[in-house]
Amino acid sequence: MSAHASCTAAVMHGANRPVELQHFSAPELEPGGVLLETLFSEVCGTDVHLSHGRLAGVPYPIIPGHVSVGKVLAVRGEPRDVDGRPVRVGATVTFLDVVGTCNACWFCLVGKMPNRCPSRRVYGVTCSAKEGLYGGWSQLIYLKPGVSILEVPSTLMPERVIAGGCALPTAIHAVDTARIQLGDRVLIQGAGPVGLSAATLALLSGAGAVYVVERHEVRLAMARDFGVDEAIRLDVTGSNGHVERILALTDGRGVDVTIEATGVPAAVKDGIRMTRDGGRYVVVGHYTDHGEVGLNPHTEINRKHLEIRGVWGVDFSHFHRMLRILDRHGARVAGGKGWEHMVSRTYGLEEVNQALADVETGRIVKGLIRPNPVRTSR
Amino acid sequence: MSAHASCTAAVMHGANRPVELQHFSAPELEPGGVLLETLFSEVCGTDVHLSHGRLAGVPYPIIPGHVSVGKVLAVRGEPRDVDGRPVRVGATVTFLDVVGTCNACWFCLVGKMPNRCPSRRVYGVTCSAKEGLYGGWSQLIYLKPGVSILEVPSTLMPERVIAGGCALPTAIHAVDTARIQLGDRVLIQGAGPVGLSAATLALLSGAGAVYVVERHEVRLAMARDFGVDEAIRLDVTGSNGHVERILALTDGRGVDVTIEATGVPAAVKDGIRMTRDGGRYVVVGHYTDHGEVGLNPHTEINRKHLEIRGVWGVDFSHFHRMLRILDRHGARVAGGKGWEHMVSRTYGLEEVNQALADVETGRIVKGLIRPNPVRTSR
Amino acid sequence: MSAHASCTAAVMHGANRPVELQHFSAPELEPGGVLLETLFSEVCGTDVHLSHGRLAGVPYPIIPGHVSVGKVLAVRGEPRDVDGRPVRVGATVTFLDVVGTCNACWFCLVGKMPNRCPSRRVYGVTCSAKEGLYGGWSQLIYLKPGVSILEVPSTLMPERVIAGGCALPTAIHAVDTARIQLGDRVLIQGAGPVGLSAATLALLSGAGAVYVVERHEVRLAMARDFGVDEAIRLDVTGSNGHVERILALTDGRGVDVTIEATGVPAAVKDGIRMTRDGGRYVVVGHYTDHGEVGLNPHTEINRKHLEIRGVWGVDFSHFHRMLRILDRHGARVAGGKGWEHMVSRTYGLEEVNQALADVETGRIVKGLIRPNPVRTSR
Amino acid sequence: MSAHASCTAAVMHGANRPVELQHFSAPELEPGGVLLETLFSEVCGTDVHLSHGRLAGVPYPIIPGHVSVGKVLAVRGEPRDVDGRPVRVGATVTFLDVVGTCNACWFCLVGKMPNRCPSRRVYGVTCSAKEGLYGGWSQLIYLKPGVSILEVPSTLMPERVIAGGCALPTAIHAVDTARIQLGDRVLIQGAGPVGLSAATLALLSGAGAVYVVERHEVRLAMARDFGVDEAIRLDVTGSNGHVERILALTDGRGVDVTIEATGVPAAVKDGIRMTRDGGRYVVVGHYTDHGEVGLNPHTEINRKHLEIRGVWGVDFSHFHRMLRILDRHGARVAGGKGWEHMVSRTYGLEEVNQALADVETGRIVKGLIRPNPVRTSR
Repeated sequence: MSAHASCTAAVMHGANRPVELQHFSAPELEPGGVLLETLFSEVCGTDVHLSHGRLAGVPYPIIPGHVSVGKVLAVRGEPRDVDGRPVRVGATVTFLDVVGTCNACWFCLVGKMPNRCPSRRVYGVTCSAKEGLYGGWSQLIYLKPGVSILEVPSTLMPERVIAGGCALPTAIHAVDTARIQLGDRVLIQGAGPVGLSAATLALLSGAGAVYVVERHEVRLAMARDFGVDEAIRLDVTGSNGHVERILALTDGRGVDVTIEATGVPAAVKDGIRMTRDGGRYVVVGHYTDHGEVGLNPHTEINRKHLEIRGVWGVDFSHFHRMLRILDRHGARVAGGKGWEHMVSRTYGLEEVNQALADVETGRIVKGLIRPNPVRTSR
Repeated sequence: MSAHASCTAAVMHGANRPVELQHFSAPELEPGGVLLETLFSEVCGTDVHLSHGRLAGVPYPIIPGHVSVGKVLAVRGEPRDVDGRPVRVGATVTFLDVVGTCNACWFCLVGKMPNRCPSRRVYGVTCSAKEGLYGGWSQLIYLKPGVSILEVPSTLMPERVIAGGCALPTAIHAVDTARIQLGDRVLIQGAGPVGLSAATLALLSGAGAVYVVERHEVRLAMARDFGVDEAIRLDVTGSNGHVERILALTDGRGVDVTIEATGVPAAVKDGIRMTRDGGRYVVVGHYTDHGEVGLNPHTEINRKHLEIRGVWGVDFSHFHRMLRILDRHGARVAGGKGWEHMVSRTYGLEEVNQALADVETGRIVKGLIRPNPVRTSR
Repeated sequence: MSAHASCTAAVMHGANRPVELQHFSAPELEPGGVLLETLFSEVCGTDVHLSHGRLAGVPYPIIPGHVSVGKVLAVRGEPRDVDGRPVRVGATVTFLDVVGTCNACWFCLVGKMPNRCPSRRVYGVTCSAKEGLYGGWSQLIYLKPGVSILEVPSTLMPERVIAGGCALPTAIHAVDTARIQLGDRVLIQGAGPVGLSAATLALLSGAGAVYVVERHEVRLAMARDFGVDEAIRLDVTGSNGHVERILALTDGRGVDVTIEATGVPAAVKDGIRMTRDGGRYVVVGHYTDHGEVGLNPHTEINRKHLEIRGVWGVDFSHFHRMLRILDRHGARVAGGKGWEHMVSRTYGLEEVNQALADVETGRIVKGLIRPNPVRTSR
Repeated sequence: MSAHASCTAAVMHGANRPVELQHFSAPELEPGGVLLETLFSEVCGTDVHLSHGRLAGVPYPIIPGHVSVGKVLAVRGEPRDVDGRPVRVGATVTFLDVVGTCNACWFCLVGKMPNRCPSRRVYGVTCSAKEGLYGGWSQLIYLKPGVSILEVPSTLMPERVIAGGCALPTAIHAVDTARIQLGDRVLIQGAGPVGLSAATLALLSGAGAVYVVERHEVRLAMARDFGVDEAIRLDVTGSNGHVERILALTDGRGVDVTIEATGVPAAVKDGIRMTRDGGRYVVVGHYTDHGEVGLNPHTEINRKHLEIRGVWGVDFSHFHRMLRILDRHGARVAGGKGWEHMVSRTYGLEEVNQALADVETGRIVKGLIRPNPVRTSR
């Protein structure tokens, strides 16, 4: 195991401090443990929040990077993936970033919300770098026994999997909750990775029309590339041109389903206006606290006969279906450019501070981290 | 038809004017029309709103009283009830107050929300007294052809049906939407007629516990009479004793299901705190506009993984089930006092202004209107 | 109205008698009535059953053809379509073949199954030719007041609408009931018009894989044209190669969802074997009685934790969504050949007996009837 | 720990051999292990099947008794129950009989059917007596680490919990699946423990009427004790009096929901006749293979627009809710006699062969096993 006796990882030491590279020894594998050479990780909005210390309970220093794809370098014992196949050295795999759900508490067994299990920990977020290589911004990742691993089929290239990344399973959860029927008109608020993934999934679900409302022109262009029926610039002047446009497109009634993925509280009020009476309104983009919005229970909920659903996190089923969806549909989206068209740029480990800045300013839609040098063959 | 050639009705002439008694001629029946002698009508919160002109589109003068029970005085042709039985002279019947849904528009045929059909009209609310006897605060009621009529079974006394009144089908709709499972803990906010009906239905649904939070002592006492597990006085001082009590009763997690029936915007925020992550929050009491409440999309919807449902009006299925529920369960609720225990007082036609005042001040829970003198036999 | 003072229609006089052409006078329009020049009608399996007298309650003679597309020749009064638009002379329209649901009975109002309303009548099936032009195998069709009409958008050509025909709304109903999630594996049994429509809708719904099992090679080829993942020839020898193939494609577990559209009782048993534990099995193809199949409640229902759903008929919402689905997705299916690729042949009125024979023998997938000569412009 | 150094258990050695008493040493506790003194176990239909060798994969010899209630004699380490409370010596507890679900396979993580997890094992059924005290027909029961334990609240007596036993969580699962709405008419086929529990739960769910069809008079009488609206003797003569009676009670339409709990294949056909078009039919009683029944896909599934659901086993959520339901409602059922009224007889360990015979012949409804002598205080 000398070839990977040590590695480099990018470490976040706390709020508003630059991420720094650091050397780590390769871990001793426990029985059932797996060591990965990282092919790709990603940088997402959560990483920006982490860099500003906005999440509670983060055990800095951490190695960011929650969803990743890697190549199996070593295993100990006979770990198996969720489909029951042995995890083989040399295989390309991905894994659910959430680990340690207990399957013994009320949330796991009665509430059936492992996404709210108090024991859950998240690679790249709530695992300390002092404990080991538990994040994707590292040349090596250690998968503890019990991590839910999936082999990436040979028909599915790693770039496409990581282009789905953490946003796609979240969007799958949101779209499931939205219960889109064939022919429904769907509005997506926000075209960051989650919104863009939700818009693409809505198209794949046979929606009658998919509209996107978004502030940044680069994201509107991307949404058009992915084939939405209309990408509408958010009107923040108060004249509400975007609301009028959506109503004009929908016989004055509003869309059947809206998925909110901007994270801006005021967007919720705006979105409800664009949703029809008796429609469904899914809130998936509010992963940090940006305060309140005033809602009118009479006109906006009760009389409107509206269904509002918050969607938090994912469970393994969403992650499992991500691979199947990408394998079956990932090549043909974006007019044949494939899911990886969502990726704006790939960064090396030494560029992660730049990557964080680019996500924060909205210059890019989705950024990848490639911690190891490119090799000729995988 | 000389016995009912004319009648007296209570007429509301507009906002903030006293209701006055007026004489009307009995109508000429159209084919399929039915004339009722009113046994009972009711006074509800909507009537108070009507008396203050708070509802849009009301064609004053009107005869209030939307849900009523009557005895068939005359029919023309062969009208049938929804179960296909002929409507017979002498029978006791009730009818859905909503008429004229078109079964031809998008709301009726595609949205499947006849409760949002623009053609719908409501007895006692949006039918003018100039058109005829279309309200229950009258000795006679005229049922136009097409009104959905139900014969009251002989096992079910008229007092019990009107004790259900307009609140019970609304509460059925809310409880259906709440999808209460056996053993669920349920919170009802507000113990007016809708809240009290919802609490009683939750008990009938096999909830593991039913809690009521309410401001008025007379209503708390009534809730206890109906057998809720705990009736908690609303703490409006800011110390939030009621919230702490609910959390203490529910392992600190909050209830599985909350039904909001106070109509106060701030109650929505309060109620969400008392509902568990992944729970369901049904808004049914907000029938008039009392402004906004500030909600936090991150902590109160998204991260909470909450489902919020607005429930507007009823359709005939709720009304139909009301009779079956009352017939099967109506006698044993309230510790055997029966559903009619909800009635605080019965008023004659000449007392309707007093009835409105009593509802407005919360002195009574539910008030009935009996437009005709009591007779020995029905 | 002299231009359409009379017309020719194809009349079915009873069981096993050839369909004959007959002259009819154009009808006098009632207020709200609409007269159509037929652009297209269709011939489907139900028409074959009608020709053999296999349906109960058919008032022969009838003019077959339940779903049709036509051009408005004349209107009386101001009929409107379901979206509230006036029905204009010259417009291309289609209409729901089911008329006369009462919106007053238990099935309509309580059961919410207008598809089971005893008052419902069906153009081309349960309307007698003695009453008028109530079927699509006629140069003119009379739409009585109350028929649910939809204007065909100018972006949607009539051939594509009739290619959807009666099979597509039925398939929409089945696919709705199947609740296909993104990534689900779906099996369609039978690739006649309903099965092929269901397969195409499953593809449009983002299924992870769509498999078809079918007996006729012409239909297997068509299914491949429409892009299913695998079209498998039904093995009727008892070796069950098709079952083994499906299990091999699905990790030995079977598909998540199966839709049965063959109408052969034995197919139900077969299909359950190919469906996974906890999966969903939708029965939509059994429109006539072909007897029983032996099912084992222990192994095939209870222990399998299976959901089986029968799906009967459609309501207007399915028909309404059909147009939206065809308008948005109809051009790109079948590798860009469009939904009309499903049409094998178009017949004139004088060829309807041939059309019936072709459907019965399975020589064609879908046959159209074009009662009027082709014109240069629509 | 000398007081419980050894114990007696009843051991089933294989098909059609009498159960024999045998001495066992008390186990060495692993960390997290719990030793119970058995208060009550039960004898159910599965035990009869086990005694005839009808279940596959049973590792005889076994100690039968899957659901049990016991008093904690000893713990090692700090085991906690699912609500997070420490398991204390002296406490009364019960536990889910299903153990060892892996939370790592497709069934657990993707299909979300731990009831179909291949790793699951069941106390009293698939745990060998050679491995230890893994069944309730024993004075002591050993709870391995990871068993899902629940403390029985002091307000709930052990007799009532075991009267629920294994049948009640199964019935909860069935009734959840049946989605009974307030006012629905419900038919239960069979009044053994599962059927009787389902009937009682349907009553607790606010059904408009609950009917039971059953063959044995002792069970019909018990159903009447529990308050069903009508208990109808199964007519096996072919005249189908029970079917006619149900149709007469339901306006000729049949009930809204039927739950089949007889396990007789022919009952499925019978029950479908008694269920209305568009109703729900839940199959829960078919735990062993008794062959096929002929069903007609056209008339009995498709045209009937029927939903049929198989319900297999339970998960922990059903077991958890069982305690809450019994605690809240268990005293008032059966006209105040309480859930324990379902118990026909309690047997000592030396009487277990008699208990099996009594269940098999239908002489009793529910039999308890009490392995230890009665003590004055618990």
